[in-house]
Amino acid sequence: MTTLITGGTVVSATGRTQADVLVDGETIAAVLSPGSTLLGHDLAVGVDRVIDATGKYVVPGGIDAHTHMELPFGGTAASDTFETGTRAAAWGGTTTIVDFAVQRAGERVQDGLAAWHAKAAGQCAVDYSFHQIIGGVDADSLAAMDSLVDEGITSFKLFMAYPGVFYSDDAQILRAMQKSADLGLLTMMHAENGPAIDVLVEQLLAQGKTDPYYHGVARAWQMEAEATHRAIMLGHLTGAPLYVVHVSAKQAVEQLAIARDRGQNVFGETCPQYLYLSLEEHLGAPGFEGAKYVCSTPLRSRAEGHQDHMWQGLRTNDLQMVSTDHCPFCMKGQKELGVGDFSKIPNGIGSVEHRMDLMYQGVVTGEITLERWVEITSTTPARMFGMYGRKGVIAPGADADVVVYDPQGHTSIGLGKTHHMSMDHSAWEGFEIDGHVDVVLSRGSVLVDEAGYHGRPGHGQFVKRGLSQYLI
Amino acid sequence: MTTLITGGTVVSATGRTQADVLVDGETIAAVLSPGSTLLGHDLAVGVDRVIDATGKYVVPGGIDAHTHMELPFGGTAASDTFETGTRAAAWGGTTTIVDFAVQRAGERVQDGLAAWHAKAAGQCAVDYSFHQIIGGVDADSLAAMDSLVDEGITSFKLFMAYPGVFYSDDAQILRAMQKSADLGLLTMMHAENGPAIDVLVEQLLAQGKTDPYYHGVARAWQMEAEATHRAIMLGHLTGAPLYVVHVSAKQAVEQLAIARDRGQNVFGETCPQYLYLSLEEHLGAPGFEGAKYVCSTPLRSRAEGHQDHMWQGLRTNDLQMVSTDHCPFCMKGQKELGVGDFSKIPNGIGSVEHRMDLMYQGVVTGEITLERWVEITSTTPARMFGMYGRKGVIAPGADADVVVYDPQGHTSIGLGKTHHMSMDHSAWEGFEIDGHVDVVLSRGSVLVDEAGYHGRPGHGQFVKRGLSQYLI
Amino acid sequence: MTTLITGGTVVSATGRTQADVLVDGETIAAVLSPGSTLLGHDLAVGVDRVIDATGKYVVPGGIDAHTHMELPFGGTAASDTFETGTRAAAWGGTTTIVDFAVQRAGERVQDGLAAWHAKAAGQCAVDYSFHQIIGGVDADSLAAMDSLVDEGITSFKLFMAYPGVFYSDDAQILRAMQKSADLGLLTMMHAENGPAIDVLVEQLLAQGKTDPYYHGVARAWQMEAEATHRAIMLGHLTGAPLYVVHVSAKQAVEQLAIARDRGQNVFGETCPQYLYLSLEEHLGAPGFEGAKYVCSTPLRSRAEGHQDHMWQGLRTNDLQMVSTDHCPFCMKGQKELGVGDFSKIPNGIGSVEHRMDLMYQGVVTGEITLERWVEITSTTPARMFGMYGRKGVIAPGADADVVVYDPQGHTSIGLGKTHHMSMDHSAWEGFEIDGHVDVVLSRGSVLVDEAGYHGRPGHGQFVKRGLSQYLI
Amino acid sequence: MTTLITGGTVVSATGRTQADVLVDGETIAAVLSPGSTLLGHDLAVGVDRVIDATGKYVVPGGIDAHTHMELPFGGTAASDTFETGTRAAAWGGTTTIVDFAVQRAGERVQDGLAAWHAKAAGQCAVDYSFHQIIGGVDADSLAAMDSLVDEGITSFKLFMAYPGVFYSDDAQILRAMQKSADLGLLTMMHAENGPAIDVLVEQLLAQGKTDPYYHGVARAWQMEAEATHRAIMLGHLTGAPLYVVHVSAKQAVEQLAIARDRGQNVFGETCPQYLYLSLEEHLGAPGFEGAKYVCSTPLRSRAEGHQDHMWQGLRTNDLQMVSTDHCPFCMKGQKELGVGDFSKIPNGIGSVEHRMDLMYQGVVTGEITLERWVEITSTTPARMFGMYGRKGVIAPGADADVVVYDPQGHTSIGLGKTHHMSMDHSAWEGFEIDGHVDVVLSRGSVLVDEAGYHGRPGHGQFVKRGLSQYLI
Repeated sequence: MTTLITGGTVVSATGRTQADVLVDGETIAAVLSPGSTLLGHDLAVGVDRVIDATGKYVVPGGIDAHTHMELPFGGTAASDTFETGTRAAAWGGTTTIVDFAVQRAGERVQDGLAAWHAKAAGQCAVDYSFHQIIGGVDADSLAAMDSLVDEGITSFKLFMAYPGVFYSDDAQILRAMQKSADLGLLTMMHAENGPAIDVLVEQLLAQGKTDPYYHGVARAWQMEAEATHRAIMLGHLTGAPLYVVHVSAKQAVEQLAIARDRGQNVFGETCPQYLYLSLEEHLGAPGFEGAKYVCSTPLRSRAEGHQDHMWQGLRTNDLQMVSTDHCPFCMKGQKELGVGDFSKIPNGIGSVEHRMDLMYQGVVTGEITLERWVEITSTTPARMFGMYGRKGVIAPGADADVVVYDPQGHTSIGLGKTHHMSMDHSAWEGFEIDGHVDVVLSRGSVLVDEAGYHGRPGHGQFVKRGLSQYLI
Repeated sequence: MTTLITGGTVVSATGRTQADVLVDGETIAAVLSPGSTLLGHDLAVGVDRVIDATGKYVVPGGIDAHTHMELPFGGTAASDTFETGTRAAAWGGTTTIVDFAVQRAGERVQDGLAAWHAKAAGQCAVDYSFHQIIGGVDADSLAAMDSLVDEGITSFKLFMAYPGVFYSDDAQILRAMQKSADLGLLTMMHAENGPAIDVLVEQLLAQGKTDPYYHGVARAWQMEAEATHRAIMLGHLTGAPLYVVHVSAKQAVEQLAIARDRGQNVFGETCPQYLYLSLEEHLGAPGFEGAKYVCSTPLRSRAEGHQDHMWQGLRTNDLQMVSTDHCPFCMKGQKELGVGDFSKIPNGIGSVEHRMDLMYQGVVTGEITLERWVEITSTTPARMFGMYGRKGVIAPGADADVVVYDPQGHTSIGLGKTHHMSMDHSAWEGFEIDGHVDVVLSRGSVLVDEAGYHGRPGHGQFVKRGLSQYLI
Repeated sequence: MTTLITGGTVVSATGRTQADVLVDGETIAAVLSPGSTLLGHDLAVGVDRVIDATGKYVVPGGIDAHTHMELPFGGTAASDTFETGTRAAAWGGTTTIVDFAVQRAGERVQDGLAAWHAKAAGQCAVDYSFHQIIGGVDADSLAAMDSLVDEGITSFKLFMAYPGVFYSDDAQILRAMQKSADLGLLTMMHAENGPAIDVLVEQLLAQGKTDPYYHGVARAWQMEAEATHRAIMLGHLTGAPLYVVHVSAKQAVEQLAIARDRGQNVFGETCPQYLYLSLEEHLGAPGFEGAKYVCSTPLRSRAEGHQDHMWQGLRTNDLQMVSTDHCPFCMKGQKELGVGDFSKIPNGIGSVEHRMDLMYQGVVTGEITLERWVEITSTTPARMFGMYGRKGVIAPGADADVVVYDPQGHTSIGLGKTHHMSMDHSAWEGFEIDGHVDVVLSRGSVLVDEAGYHGRPGHGQFVKRGLSQYLI
Repeated sequence: MTTLITGGTVVSATGRTQADVLVDGETIAAVLSPGSTLLGHDLAVGVDRVIDATGKYVVPGGIDAHTHMELPFGGTAASDTFETGTRAAAWGGTTTIVDFAVQRAGERVQDGLAAWHAKAAGQCAVDYSFHQIIGGVDADSLAAMDSLVDEGITSFKLFMAYPGVFYSDDAQILRAMQKSADLGLLTMMHAENGPAIDVLVEQLLAQGKTDPYYHGVARAWQMEAEATHRAIMLGHLTGAPLYVVHVSAKQAVEQLAIARDRGQNVFGETCPQYLYLSLEEHLGAPGFEGAKYVCSTPLRSRAEGHQDHMWQGLRTNDLQMVSTDHCPFCMKGQKELGVGDFSKIPNGIGSVEHRMDLMYQGVVTGEITLERWVEITSTTPARMFGMYGRKGVIAPGADADVVVYDPQGHTSIGLGKTHHMSMDHSAWEGFEIDGHVDVVLSRGSVLVDEAGYHGRPGHGQFVKRGLSQYLI
């Protein structure tokens, strides 16, 4: 099966080119000067399928490096399965996700990984990989890390938050980071001072401050800035490369910037919610509406300027990429668990479907360039997590994960409109995007086009990843 | 004429791909999966020439964005003509230079530009463009800037040094930067406090401190850090994008980093001499040997750590690219003018031939990655100066400026070895490089291969440039 | 003549003490435990006069280190003579002023100094000294600086603003700073980029933007931050201690803080207007009202937070003291010169009378501590400018310059109320102060008490100053 | 009993004055112009004792705000009792110490305080007070903090180091800091990341790296910088004023400087050992000699420049004062416990006797000014810990704690020379001081003069302290 995508503007992290893209089977065979004639051969005649991308952008499929499908959390589980979540991803132009396999204290790492393989296998519409959560750093789990590279799992995540659940203390973090430095694994960090936050949560609840808004009060920016600096120092001591997930506080970005200015391998990801939503407007919405926006790190105050600073961080490359931290919960039966006690609201927002659109809107409003859009949604995720060459680029030999994006199109986000995630609400209801995902190919197969969805569970395959290709 | 470069590793700013490159005429027609078979056609059969790049890197031709061929300076002129200088560039894998047309106070900008066009036309072995030096900012020259974009000259240079020669005072800089912001022109700045430096020069000479070493003493780092901050503030006020040339002081890099951290469009270039050579060892060489290394900004103290900081700046992207500031003078009859008075030594070092090799050695020693080598020597220069798409990338439609670089090869720099610049000495004598420029193509023509040099004056064409593609 | 001040709280820069102060002739003879009994002698019996300070603060007389009495400026002259200005100072608890003798280009420094001595001699109500303005740095004026220390003039001022008037270029500044470093003189700097500002002024006027508000627009904060950094770098290069006058931009304070954090002898003064008044409210007042507030550096935007940052700078000691830059002009016949052209409005605000009160209000509102009030209004000025021991402290041997300040008193500032400056308006009209200057002694003489004013022209004497006692 | 100290130069934190000091009973009655005549009375006739201080400095008695007499630690106890330690202090011109009462987990705070009162009562040669160590933050100890102010204990100390001993986790620190903010208590912090350090200790020992040198390796600067930032952020969140003890890493000073530049109430103390001694020379001394220098935070690398940075911090006031952290252990029977295992070496250096001399040597070598010497050794400690007025100043009403210091004298430190501490070695053996403590008065009594020691156990009294007088 061969496909020729003609007439479009191929956009990379560094620039744009008028070029045709020839797909042969699952991979890209060639990128060619437009016109589909090569050494006298009219390629358009020979191919099985031609996709006209005239006037449109041809970009590498989105990579969402932070999702939590079916994650057990707070007595319930994230509402998207690998099947529903990856289908939604496909609809939105994301052709690879990296989810998190979970090891908890007392469990074997390989068992956790196997469990997540079992959940995803045969279910996914798009390709997928895993980071490994190490929720219980001990001699066994440290030893188990040795085999992760062979398994294609080259990044693991620790938590400075959630004591009693995923939390690692500094002794554990130090040991795990030493492994990270030895093996070349990327250390991912949820950087919030959990023990201190839990005191604030307890005190707020005791004062009757139980609304979702207080979730944001308890998780003060100082607690994120603090933990970020702590992780950086432990990274500096051990030599472990560090990737801080879901950065939302400007003071945390400042810590990243300081470390990066001295040449340390420190990276940061932010999420669409930290760019668009706020403590005042969303977490502070009347009644229990704020529960829709409960996630950790929390939405931050717009008056304090965090949102603008996140955009700036994306421009200055003090933040390298945008993931979703997709962790959906329905209001009914899930978020509702926290009525009268914000600490019982399952943490998470669902965005896997809308990341490409939401970030493209940043191009429209002038926050980022078109090239930067490709870089932060696909190329850098691929490099950061050891998939570049296969993913993240329109180049021969790469998987034919391609999105044709129409800058003249329009997308209205919301239930009953574009919503395919397994949720009874959307944090993005009412958002209007001046662009549209027209065609989505995954490894050469058209998953989405104007006729609708053509994907299927099981098309998506596990991606064994190499070591990070983004280190300096 | 078609050429197929097979078997190599195509390296871009973001990663590497095993791919063949098909050249048709002057441009790249396609980048293809290795094996030269496409839809059943064996391309190797159809092409006129096959270049075997097996085991080698295939990279976009080097762009040296800062050269001064035939520049009149201090009563003499740079010893390389456009003919000799561009031939040397070709030998070293640099397929585009951006030289500087000069306008002096009282002269018409368009006359200066025309004069430089006349010097270069028909002489160049590789493609060339010009930045415009505005040595006399006044109503006429400001008005003349309006037409520069149409001429394909999208960057101009001011001098905070050299009072009485090229110097602009802050009122002039402000006015020129306002034009820069209005027109989208990039402001390039020689950032040294000339008036203050001239006092120090006068005092040192009066004290009998006439050796080349004192050139470095007079041009103290404070004077570079100061001027850099001044230019940044004037850029902030006017909105002009700023590109600081030949950065050598770590404190200047710190100023760039601060500005960049807040998202200002501020950029910095360094040169090989600031990465490898030093005040103590080279400017301070016995006798008059130091004269070989007199350039401005000057070589800096290794004890103060400037060289390490330049490498770090390249890693952190606080410095975006490496140019040569190629401005060669012979010892005999030129540098000798300054015996007994360092201020009369013509300023400049010749490096246009060795930039690609010298920077590749930084890959070998682990200072930068292979991708970063491509980025700082070709891709970013192309983006910075509005040539990307045509230059700076291996992609269909781009000029077929391609270098096949052999990481198993070796290059010994020095007179009688690899030296083709019109100089009677080399600042790089004795440098050994663990790599080799094997083949150089310029717009599809092989200029250099194992058989030697095949270029000719006049092959190189003027490149009309667009506005910078690197702004955020 | 002996005086005993009893029952008060003596406040110093470091703390407060319940103590009596015994004045003998012009100096303080002793500071004693309260009760006025010493070794059995009842001192209250033996003294000529007792001042009851019960419940009040006894503080060293204010030192205003930046005034411009009778300064010729823009075709007119500051409206306070040394007689009227120092009388107003006395009313407000300021017992020493340091004014500026002026040398202009082509004039002899000693002539300028002599001229100012002539103006002040026999006129002043309180003690006075001079800084020397060097408005024309050349071989003669540099040579003349050698004798300044002997004259008791240990600080001189340069201007980076006002080209054609007082302006020094960087070559001149460098030479003068070298003298400063050699002789131990403190370099005072008006840090604004005058050449660039003048371009903006010209452009604004050409656009018909002639209102006083545009004075603030033209003198943008970037121009102050720039010049501040430039002066710091020249100070770093030469080793000259640097004192930046009338700091108003937060970015300038940031530059001071950076330099101070590395241990450089860099200091900054701010003025009451930069703490209380703003671009929007005052310079931007309707009609020509804004002219009252035209001074340079200008009032800054409150929206940008400069005022809060000045208070913070006083707390963090990144700003060391508060002077007034007292330079009064009447609206009638003076400020009016600038109707229709803000650049013709004489620059200056009159505050010499109100500085102690205005800063005390900062104690009331919690911006600074009581001790810090004494430090920034008296002790540090004395140390900074080489008068400590004689001035700036309540200690034996010191001049008996003492203010009894009543924290229960109240002061309403305004014409017809407390205004003794020779002005037809007040920038401080309507300000209410929760405290009151009750008694003012200058060298043992009561100048002000509840009965009114007892001073006279000629009481004030010239103070020969030593080198700065504040350097590290 | 009256004493007149005549002819000396009284030095304060802000300057020097020629003045006589009259002591009546335990307090200073007056500070007078030299000559001892007041209103015609010759005071020298009336007083009981005259001390001639001609040519000498008269300064407030030293305050060592960080000592650990008789501290149980690591199975042994600090070798100085309150009797021997305070006698040594007196010999060296220190007339007040602030020691640490200890509460451990499970103990009552008031019991710990009472125990320390019992140890010190009737034993001390000089006045003393206590900080309260809270080694077990829980509901009981938090409640007990409420009464500390009434007890005159206005500062308490937490440990981020020593898990299982004094360690508080971040939840505990947060709760204690909330108390600190509520009550106005100063939070003192041992800022090192103990859990991470303990991992490094275990690993080093397992590798056979058991020498004292590895104590410094394990306690890496990153662990101090990290904890310092963490404490600052918790202080920022809660509003608690923070005082970081024994700062030794330049990166920790940088954290303090950043916090202070934004106006946060954050303070730092360093100790003589961090100014003079180093990892390479002292901890790395041959054999087990390094054990003499084992203290925490550890001595730092001179090659990394920490010592110079501590002096700089003292100049820039990013460090406010110098205490000793006096915690003496003999080599014999105590330090020897750690032969073959550096982690078993009792932590501490004895310096209480030499602080005034060692810091005065910094005046001689030009590191600090004479005034700054008084400020960092006496005035600021008094202000910081709520004793100013009674201590830290030569002023009427203050305790007559006075040192006559001879800048023409000389002091050779070492056993058999000037050593009165209960130790079998001195970390300061061989240090030569260009000055000498001539006379020491404590509350009007002469403890030391040329005839020797006149003090006695029990002269020293407990000082009830008020809240910090140093906050902004």
